[in-house]
Amino acid sequence: MDKDNLSVVLHSTGDLRLEQRPIPEPGPNEVLLQMHSVGICGSDVHFWQHGRIGDYVVKNPMVLGHEASGRVVKVGSEVKHLKPGDRVAIEPGVPREVDEFFKTGHYNLSPSVFFCATPPDDGSLCRYYKHSASFCYKLPDNVTFEEGALVEPLSVGIHACRRGGVTLGSTVLICGAGPIGLVSLLAAKAMGAAQVVISDLSEKRLEMAKELGADFSVTVQREDSSRDLAKKVESLLGEQPHVAIECTGVEASAQVAIYATRPAGVIVLVGMGSETATVPLLTATFKELDIRGIFRYCNTWPVAIAMLASKKVNVKPLVTHRFPLEQAVQAFETSRQGLGVKVMLKCDKNDQNP
Amino acid sequence: MDKDNLSVVLHSTGDLRLEQRPIPEPGPNEVLLQMHSVGICGSDVHFWQHGRIGDYVVKNPMVLGHEASGRVVKVGSEVKHLKPGDRVAIEPGVPREVDEFFKTGHYNLSPSVFFCATPPDDGSLCRYYKHSASFCYKLPDNVTFEEGALVEPLSVGIHACRRGGVTLGSTVLICGAGPIGLVSLLAAKAMGAAQVVISDLSEKRLEMAKELGADFSVTVQREDSSRDLAKKVESLLGEQPHVAIECTGVEASAQVAIYATRPAGVIVLVGMGSETATVPLLTATFKELDIRGIFRYCNTWPVAIAMLASKKVNVKPLVTHRFPLEQAVQAFETSRQGLGVKVMLKCDKNDQNP
Amino acid sequence: MDKDNLSVVLHSTGDLRLEQRPIPEPGPNEVLLQMHSVGICGSDVHFWQHGRIGDYVVKNPMVLGHEASGRVVKVGSEVKHLKPGDRVAIEPGVPREVDEFFKTGHYNLSPSVFFCATPPDDGSLCRYYKHSASFCYKLPDNVTFEEGALVEPLSVGIHACRRGGVTLGSTVLICGAGPIGLVSLLAAKAMGAAQVVISDLSEKRLEMAKELGADFSVTVQREDSSRDLAKKVESLLGEQPHVAIECTGVEASAQVAIYATRPAGVIVLVGMGSETATVPLLTATFKELDIRGIFRYCNTWPVAIAMLASKKVNVKPLVTHRFPLEQAVQAFETSRQGLGVKVMLKCDKNDQNP
Amino acid sequence: MDKDNLSVVLHSTGDLRLEQRPIPEPGPNEVLLQMHSVGICGSDVHFWQHGRIGDYVVKNPMVLGHEASGRVVKVGSEVKHLKPGDRVAIEPGVPREVDEFFKTGHYNLSPSVFFCATPPDDGSLCRYYKHSASFCYKLPDNVTFEEGALVEPLSVGIHACRRGGVTLGSTVLICGAGPIGLVSLLAAKAMGAAQVVISDLSEKRLEMAKELGADFSVTVQREDSSRDLAKKVESLLGEQPHVAIECTGVEASAQVAIYATRPAGVIVLVGMGSETATVPLLTATFKELDIRGIFRYCNTWPVAIAMLASKKVNVKPLVTHRFPLEQAVQAFETSRQGLGVKVMLKCDKNDQNP
Repeated sequence: MDKDNLSVVLHSTGDLRLEQRPIPEPGPNEVLLQMHSVGICGSDVHFWQHGRIGDYVVKNPMVLGHEASGRVVKVGSEVKHLKPGDRVAIEPGVPREVDEFFKTGHYNLSPSVFFCATPPDDGSLCRYYKHSASFCYKLPDNVTFEEGALVEPLSVGIHACRRGGVTLGSTVLICGAGPIGLVSLLAAKAMGAAQVVISDLSEKRLEMAKELGADFSVTVQREDSSRDLAKKVESLLGEQPHVAIECTGVEASAQVAIYATRPAGVIVLVGMGSETATVPLLTATFKELDIRGIFRYCNTWPVAIAMLASKKVNVKPLVTHRFPLEQAVQAFETSRQGLGVKVMLKCDKNDQNP
Repeated sequence: MDKDNLSVVLHSTGDLRLEQRPIPEPGPNEVLLQMHSVGICGSDVHFWQHGRIGDYVVKNPMVLGHEASGRVVKVGSEVKHLKPGDRVAIEPGVPREVDEFFKTGHYNLSPSVFFCATPPDDGSLCRYYKHSASFCYKLPDNVTFEEGALVEPLSVGIHACRRGGVTLGSTVLICGAGPIGLVSLLAAKAMGAAQVVISDLSEKRLEMAKELGADFSVTVQREDSSRDLAKKVESLLGEQPHVAIECTGVEASAQVAIYATRPAGVIVLVGMGSETATVPLLTATFKELDIRGIFRYCNTWPVAIAMLASKKVNVKPLVTHRFPLEQAVQAFETSRQGLGVKVMLKCDKNDQNP
Repeated sequence: MDKDNLSVVLHSTGDLRLEQRPIPEPGPNEVLLQMHSVGICGSDVHFWQHGRIGDYVVKNPMVLGHEASGRVVKVGSEVKHLKPGDRVAIEPGVPREVDEFFKTGHYNLSPSVFFCATPPDDGSLCRYYKHSASFCYKLPDNVTFEEGALVEPLSVGIHACRRGGVTLGSTVLICGAGPIGLVSLLAAKAMGAAQVVISDLSEKRLEMAKELGADFSVTVQREDSSRDLAKKVESLLGEQPHVAIECTGVEASAQVAIYATRPAGVIVLVGMGSETATVPLLTATFKELDIRGIFRYCNTWPVAIAMLASKKVNVKPLVTHRFPLEQAVQAFETSRQGLGVKVMLKCDKNDQNP
Repeated sequence: MDKDNLSVVLHSTGDLRLEQRPIPEPGPNEVLLQMHSVGICGSDVHFWQHGRIGDYVVKNPMVLGHEASGRVVKVGSEVKHLKPGDRVAIEPGVPREVDEFFKTGHYNLSPSVFFCATPPDDGSLCRYYKHSASFCYKLPDNVTFEEGALVEPLSVGIHACRRGGVTLGSTVLICGAGPIGLVSLLAAKAMGAAQVVISDLSEKRLEMAKELGADFSVTVQREDSSRDLAKKVESLLGEQPHVAIECTGVEASAQVAIYATRPAGVIVLVGMGSETATVPLLTATFKELDIRGIFRYCNTWPVAIAMLASKKVNVKPLVTHRFPLEQAVQAFETSRQGLGVKVMLKCDKNDQNP
C-alpha cells in the first residue's frame, strides 16, 4: 500500500481538483478500502456546476463520488464479516444515530445520516477510502467491480419499484430514460412487470431503453398536452398502467403520470424538480391514487447483488465510458455533456478492468 | 303500506321539489325499504345549488339523499340475510359489474358503480326505496336509525383513516372541521390515535371538534403561510404528525399537510377542490411521503356498525337539526347556510324518533 | 353447432363415464363455450379414485375438469366484454353471493362459491359448457388454448408466491416438484426470486424442475430428519430462504419449511395432507415466522395471461400428454400413474392443436 | 450518589441472591440510571426455578429483571437526547450489530441482540444500571415510573396486536388471561377492537380481564374439545373472530385459535410451550389463515408511552403487589405463587411511590 491517495475534490462551484489526501485510518467498525470503480452521478455533476442541490451547499472542499466499489485492505477491530482482500460494493448512506427512522427500517430518512459526497460528507472518488463495515457488501466472484459500483444507481430503481409495488403482471410507465429511468426499467422487469412504456424527449435515450427491455416508448415534445400523452400511454399498453415512475422532476411529467395511471394505482416520485408543482390532485383523489416520494434507498444492496450474481439483471450495458482516476475532470466533462449513460472512473492504477 | 312515496327530487339547478313517485318493486336480490332517517350531505346541497359536481351533471330529475337508514318491508326472492321488519343502514354505492376493481376489493372504484344521488342514479330521500340487499346492513337493537344513517359519513372518516394507516399511537393532523373532518376525528381516535390536531377557519367548528375529542385546534387565517401553519402543528403536538387528513379541498391546506407531516408519513386527500393544485412535491419526495386519494369508501359498514354497537364511537352529537320529510326544502336551506353540523330528514310519518 | 355434448362424468368412486349431456343455455351474465383444452388435475383423479376430498363428497354424478379454455359460441344478454369467437381461459371459481369475502377481494373464500368439479358443482370437461362471463378472460392471439388451460394451475403458483411475498432477490424453498411445485417455481422466478431450491422424493421430478429453472434440488429420503434437510437447504443457498412454499401436504415437509426459513420469513401452505400435523410451532414463534394457508386463488387470471402473452413465463413444457376427449378414461389412467406432468384433454373434434 | 448497588442475582437454579455489584460506568452512547421500578416477569421466575428457558441457560451469575424504569444520573459523551434527571422507560433489547434484521426494522430478531436478564446478559434489577441511551425513552410528567416499567409487558401486547392486524372493528379472541393476555386485551381495545373474548382456566383471572374491558370470557376445562370451544367463541361474538392471540403456549389453545378464527383471519403465537405442537394445519390452509409468531417486540416504546400519556390505556390496575428491592426474594415467591398480576420491585430507597 503506497501513500498515494489521489482524490477528486470539489472546492467550490466549477472548481474541481485532483489532489492528494491522507490515507484514513479505519475505526473499530470500519474498513479501509482500495477503491476500484466509481461512477459519476448527475448529482456529482450538479454539485460541480452549481455548488449546491437544494439545501445542500458545498461550503468546504468535498471529495465527490458515491457509486463505488473497492477492495478491503484493512479492517477495524470489531469487524467480523469482512477481511482484507474482500471485494465489496459500498452503500454510501450510513445512519449516525439509532433514531425512530433507523429503528423502523427507514435509515435513509434519518436526518443526521452520513452520505458520500453530500455536503459536508466526503465521497469515495479517491484511491483509499474508509467506510462503515456494515454498509460494505461482499461481491461474489461472478460480479465485477463495475457491477458493484452500479448497485448504487440500480438501488434507486429497486427502491422506486418497491415503493411502487411493481409485481408480477404490472404494467408500468417510466417517465424519463436517463440513468435512473433505465435502472427503474431493469428493476421493474426483474420484478415481473408484464409491460413497460418509457417516455423521454430524446430518441437516442429511448433507443437505449428499448435495447434494455422497454416494450414501448413515447417520444415527448415539450408542447404535448399531459392528457394526450396519458392517452397515448394507455393506447400503447392497451390499458392504464398500474404504476408510474416519474424520473424527470418535470411538472408536466408528474401530470402525465397522474392522468395515465389506473384507479388504485401508484405514482412514484423519483425525479427532483422545483420545490412546487401544479398537478391534478383532484384526479388523484377520485382515482384513489397513491403518490409516493422516494429519497435515495434502503435495504437494496443484498437484493441487487443477488440479482447480479444470478444474472437476472444486466447492468453492464449502462457503462458507456471509462476514464482512469487521473482523468477525472475529463470524465466529469463527458458526463456533463450527457454523452452516453454512465461514465466510470477507474481508481486502481493496477487494475482498470471492469 | 300506503301508496304515499313522497320523494325529494332535484329537477335542475335550484329546482328542488317534493313529489310523489311510484313505490318500486324489489328485484330478486333487492329489498324494499321504508325509509326512516336520511342525512343531508354537502354534495346534495351542491347538486341543488350548482346542478353538477365535476363531471357529474344533473340532466334529468333525480331523487337526492344517500346517508340513509330504513326498515325492510319486502324482500326479493333470492334474499337470505334480511327479512321484513329488519332495520338496516344503506350503503349507497353498489357495483354493477364484476370487474377488476370489484374482484380486488375496490368496488367503490368500479367505473359503472351505482351511487345514490349521483346522476343519473336516484337517491334514497323518499318514503319507499329499493336497494341491493347485499348493501343493506342490519342494525343491532342498540343502534338507532339516525346512527344507521350516519354510518355513511362515518365511513368516509374510516376509509380516510384506513388509507392513512392511522393506528395505535399515531399523531394526526386533520385539515377542516366540517362534517367530514369530524368523522375523521372520531375514526382516528377510535383507531388508537394518541393525539389529533384539527384546523379550520371557523372557531365554532373547532369548538365542536374539541368537544368530540380533538386534542388541539388551529384557527387558520386565510393569509397564514403554509410553512408557518405546519410549524404550529408540530409545536402543538411536540412532533410532526404521522398522518394528515386533508378534508377541505383547499390548495393551501394540502401544502400545510405536506410541510407538516413527518418523513415516511401519509397524507390522505379527502376534500375535493379545483382540478389542479400547486403543492411542494419536492418536499414530499425528500420526505418519502405517501399522498393518497380517497373516493367514497368500501367495506366500512360492518366495522362502523360494530363500533356504534359497542359504543366505542359516538356520532349522535353530529345531528344538530331534524325536519320531517315534508319540510325538506327548509332542511336543505338550513344545511346550505352551514348552521349546525348534520341536518336529518325524518321520512317515516309514524316514527320521527332518532 | 351440433348436438354433441360428450361429457366426462364421475358417477361414484371409480365409476367414470363418457356420456352425452344437453348443451346448456347461458343466462344473461353467462357465456356458452365450446371447450378446447382441459387439463387433468390431481383433484380430478382423487375424486375418481376416492369419491371425496375432505368434506367434499361426490353424491350425484358430476362432470369433472376445471383447468380449461374454450371458444365463446353464445353470449348472454348482459355480457359486454366478450363476443362469439373469442378464445378464453376459464376461472373455475365464481362467487354466488356478494358477502364480506367477495367485497374485500377474497372471493375464493366465500363459503357458497361455485367451483367446477367440486361437488355438487359440475366441471368443464365436455364439449359445451356455460360459465359466468366475468370469470372468462380473453386470450391474446399469441397465447394458445393449452396455455389458457394452464392458467389454472399457474394461478395456484402465483397465489402461493403472492401470499409468500416472493419479490426481487427472494430466496425460496419449494417442497415438492409435482405440478404445483413446478408452477410455484415458474411464478417465483417470474416475480424476481434470486434462487430457488426445490425438494422431492423423485429424481425424475427434480430433473424437470431443474429444466424449468430451479437453481438447486434436494432429493429427499423418507428417513431424513427435518432439521438435517433444513440445514442442507441453507447450505445450498448459502443462507436461509426468505420464503418456503410447501406443496406436498406432508407433515415432515412442513417441519423442514419451519426449520429452514429465516427469521421474519414466510411459509406458504399449499399442499393438503391430513387434518392435523405436528410441527415446531415454538421455532416459528421465536423466528416470528408467518405461516400462511392458501385456498385455490383469486385475481390471478389477468396477471397470468399477461405473463404468458409477454413470454415471461413458459408453461408449455408442462404438457407431457394429450388425449382426445373420447379417450378420457385412458387420459385419467395416465395421470393416475403419475407419468409425465400434465395430461391435456382435447375437447374440440376439429381442432386438437395446443 | 452513594456506592450501594444492591442487585438481584441468580447464581443457579433456585439460588437467588441479593448482593452488591459495582456501579457501572456508561460508555459514550450509554446512560447510567438510578433504577426506580422493576416488574417481575414470568421469565424471571422461570429462570430462577429452572435455570433455563429453551436454549438460554444460566451458566454464570446473572442479574434478573427487564421490566424497568429509572432516572438518568449520568450520560455518555455522545448522548444528546437525554440529560441527568430525566425519567425514562428502558427497552431491554438492544441490537449489537447492524445486520439485515436491524436494517429492515426487525432489530428484535438480530441473533446477537443484547437482552436484559437473558443469559449471558445481565438485567436491570438493581440500584444502578447502565443502558444504551437510544433504548431509553423519556417519560412525560404525567406517566409514573411504574407505568414506565409496565411499558415492557404492554409492548408484548402491542406487538402481538400489530402482528395480528387488530384494527377498527376487529373481533378478537385472546387465549389466556395472565399478564400477557391482559396487556394484549388492553392493546386490542386501544387499537379499536369492537369485541374481545378471552379464555382461561381460572375464573379469577377472567374476572380481572372483564374489569379491564373484555366483552366476553370463556372458562376452559382441561377436557373441553377444541372444536367445541371454538364454537363457543363464535356463539359469544355472534361471528368468528378476525384475530386470535394465543398467549398460553398450550397446544389445545392453538387448536382452538385455528378452529375459531374466520377465513382470511390471523392467529398470533405469543405463548411459548413445547417445541412441537399438533395443530389442524389443513383447516388453516383451507381458511387461508395467517399464523404469525412473535418474539418480544420492536418499535413499541414511543407508541406505548404516547398511549399512557394520553390516558387511552390504563395499565395501573395490573400492579397488585409492591416490595422494596431488599425484599426481592419474597417478591419472587409472591410472583411464583401466581398471586395477583404484576409484582413490582421498588429500587429507589428514597422513592417507593408508583
